[in-house]
Amino acid sequence: MYASKNIPRVQTMDGIPAAEDPLPRVVIIGAGFAGLKAALHLRNAPVHLTVIDRTNHHLFQPLLYQVATATLSPGEISSPIRHVLKRQRNAEVIMAEVTGVDTVQKRVLLGERSVPYDYLVVATGAREKYFEHDEWKPLAPGLKSIEDARAIRHKLLHAFETAEQERDVERQKELLTFVIVGAGPTGVEMAGAIAEVARKVLTSEFRHIDPSLARIVLIEAHEWVLSAFPEKLSHRAERELRRLGVEICTKTFVTQIDERGVVANGERIQACTVFWTAGVQASPAANWLDVEADGAGRVPVAEDLSVPGLENVFVIGDTAACTWRGRLLPGVAPVAMQQGVYVARLIAARVAGRAMQPFHYVDKGNLATIGRGFAVLQMGRLKLWGFPAWVLWLLIHIYYLIGFENRILVLMQWAWAYITFRRGVRLITQVEPLAS
Amino acid sequence: MYASKNIPRVQTMDGIPAAEDPLPRVVIIGAGFAGLKAALHLRNAPVHLTVIDRTNHHLFQPLLYQVATATLSPGEISSPIRHVLKRQRNAEVIMAEVTGVDTVQKRVLLGERSVPYDYLVVATGAREKYFEHDEWKPLAPGLKSIEDARAIRHKLLHAFETAEQERDVERQKELLTFVIVGAGPTGVEMAGAIAEVARKVLTSEFRHIDPSLARIVLIEAHEWVLSAFPEKLSHRAERELRRLGVEICTKTFVTQIDERGVVANGERIQACTVFWTAGVQASPAANWLDVEADGAGRVPVAEDLSVPGLENVFVIGDTAACTWRGRLLPGVAPVAMQQGVYVARLIAARVAGRAMQPFHYVDKGNLATIGRGFAVLQMGRLKLWGFPAWVLWLLIHIYYLIGFENRILVLMQWAWAYITFRRGVRLITQVEPLAS
Repeated sequence: MYASKNIPRVQTMDGIPAAEDPLPRVVIIGAGFAGLKAALHLRNAPVHLTVIDRTNHHLFQPLLYQVATATLSPGEISSPIRHVLKRQRNAEVIMAEVTGVDTVQKRVLLGERSVPYDYLVVATGAREKYFEHDEWKPLAPGLKSIEDARAIRHKLLHAFETAEQERDVERQKELLTFVIVGAGPTGVEMAGAIAEVARKVLTSEFRHIDPSLARIVLIEAHEWVLSAFPEKLSHRAERELRRLGVEICTKTFVTQIDERGVVANGERIQACTVFWTAGVQASPAANWLDVEADGAGRVPVAEDLSVPGLENVFVIGDTAACTWRGRLLPGVAPVAMQQGVYVARLIAARVAGRAMQPFHYVDKGNLATIGRGFAVLQMGRLKLWGFPAWVLWLLIHIYYLIGFENRILVLMQWAWAYITFRRGVRLITQVEPLAS
Repeated sequence: MYASKNIPRVQTMDGIPAAEDPLPRVVIIGAGFAGLKAALHLRNAPVHLTVIDRTNHHLFQPLLYQVATATLSPGEISSPIRHVLKRQRNAEVIMAEVTGVDTVQKRVLLGERSVPYDYLVVATGAREKYFEHDEWKPLAPGLKSIEDARAIRHKLLHAFETAEQERDVERQKELLTFVIVGAGPTGVEMAGAIAEVARKVLTSEFRHIDPSLARIVLIEAHEWVLSAFPEKLSHRAERELRRLGVEICTKTFVTQIDERGVVANGERIQACTVFWTAGVQASPAANWLDVEADGAGRVPVAEDLSVPGLENVFVIGDTAACTWRGRLLPGVAPVAMQQGVYVARLIAARVAGRAMQPFHYVDKGNLATIGRGFAVLQMGRLKLWGFPAWVLWLLIHIYYLIGFENRILVLMQWAWAYITFRRGVRLITQVEPLAS
């Protein structure tokens, strides 16, 4: 009665003899930009494909900061993986947590169960890195998942609610001070968005505080914000951030974070809310594969993105330490997507008995947005900033958002937010005792 | 530096002498339909108004089942209370949990703090009632808040994910059986929506199960579903539910709920997922006010909605036991809104030294929807069903949704879902170990 109309040629789970399957089994762990691209580009390959993810959705991470700052709803930047791969008949999706990989038996371990593979693609991304200070994690959340975004949104909005009820002026200042550690694209975008929430969105909604007096501090260890960008664009970005009232502390190192604030370059900044976007640590893939990781936990890969010493095992996206023309490729979406496409083609070629050229990276440039109507963009020799760059930012993000419905809805939300500064998703849903 | 541009004439919180205020202080607890209507209708009254809610948002509860079944995002049916009352200069909003009321000192207690009142309006709604079985609560969640809706969505989607990975056929059947206890409007709407998710939305997304074979069982103690409706409409609703493949068990009493299912009329139904919409229990307002509640925890009110024996204390909405022409008014939005408007007018009249007629209820009828394109509607003598009733359902809900942006977005989501059966918000965000 419950048997499927869509029985695949073989079931790859435990209990069904794998030998029946004439097709090579490809297992992809992680359905982010890298993993999903690889899966989609294997659609015509004669393989049996299994995509494993701990959640049921692909997340459009570049817009996560807009969920964290209450412009978009989580559902608008997510697409169910099953839905994306619905018509891809050679693919199945397993929602499960990977616990390890048996590279000898060639099986991916899911607790007590396991899935066999002939080709393995690991694309499990990265998490925040707190350097030697894991105790900072609960104090200064990062932004990698929908849960993170909800937690940050909650913390941000809650700070204003608590400040409204606080009668101690010093404590009120602390509550209205927001520190963002790390001025890469995420940090810069967060700082700009928080400034807009405080100065524009919440205006005249409170009776005892003036949200527009909130202090937003952006801390960066490098000499400039957006250190991956050309210096000129970094300066433009800094100027725009200052215009929005963001305090920028470059060449500044955080040495302490506690419940009342941070210590940076020896100086204390009293702040109830601290966010962390200062560094990433790759997922534990290196442990699973029993290979040596680099300092950021990434797995060093060969020029065909395979892991040296392991047969038909590939690591792509933020989890891979991939060197290209002498420099390490950054953990950004364009790199992940190109690697996903490459690995799919390589596997298809191997299955067909053909050889492949090494991975070739095409630099797509850099892009970051600051508040509404301003972005900085570098594409090859082209450098753009301000409104024209923002329009390009918008078009690129809309273009890459998976799911037609999401695109339209996000565009509408943005249009509405742009005109009115309203925030439709200003939800605080957990009931927490208000700190006082 | 942090002083507000919008200093109200007086601060009502502790520490500021209340005697300074020449205006009567009105405190409204709860910003649901009843409380928010009361607040909005006091906008021109010469009072100082404080609205207290445990969350920061007004929730459009009649559409909560659409969040639970992954059609709408939480943000689309919520509006920040502060935003709704932004331009109402006599109002302030406090996000806090009420712990009690001191009716002698006339103060609302918020833990260690308190807020004084001259007029108190209690509109704190209701929660599920599990009759003598509070142990059923975690097993069969109800649907009253955004958190509830997220929990139900998670449970619903997770059941399909787990079934996909289950090899035991009996266990798979259990995982694909959904029991809804209680066939009032919420239960009927949930059953219809779950049937559509299983039969239409998830089609061909799974490889090892056929979601359309899911069993959906609706259990009701009364003789018909929608017992508040005219019998004819109940029958039409039952027919439509059956057409969608919902099993209806009327005159059926649940005597046991456990992790593997329910026992109803002595018979066991194996089911991993059970939802509860069978009864409500008013909020603890009766305890706060130290008055005797009725069987459902409601506070009996006089014909001006005041609490007998207490001066200038009113209870409205689902928390009130309000008798009108010999029968108790039901806990639905039209009743709550009419009571909110009435109490606002009454307070304004008293402040002005005028008298008011007793509360007069206008029956707006009954309305429930089943899946896409079908509703039943009774308005006075008018009885409608099918598509025409559904169009009215749509117009009425769009009309009452607070916030222009939300209306447009919800309309678009519905239009899209109607055409394509897609669900944009099929998010499972918690990582839970998969039961097996």
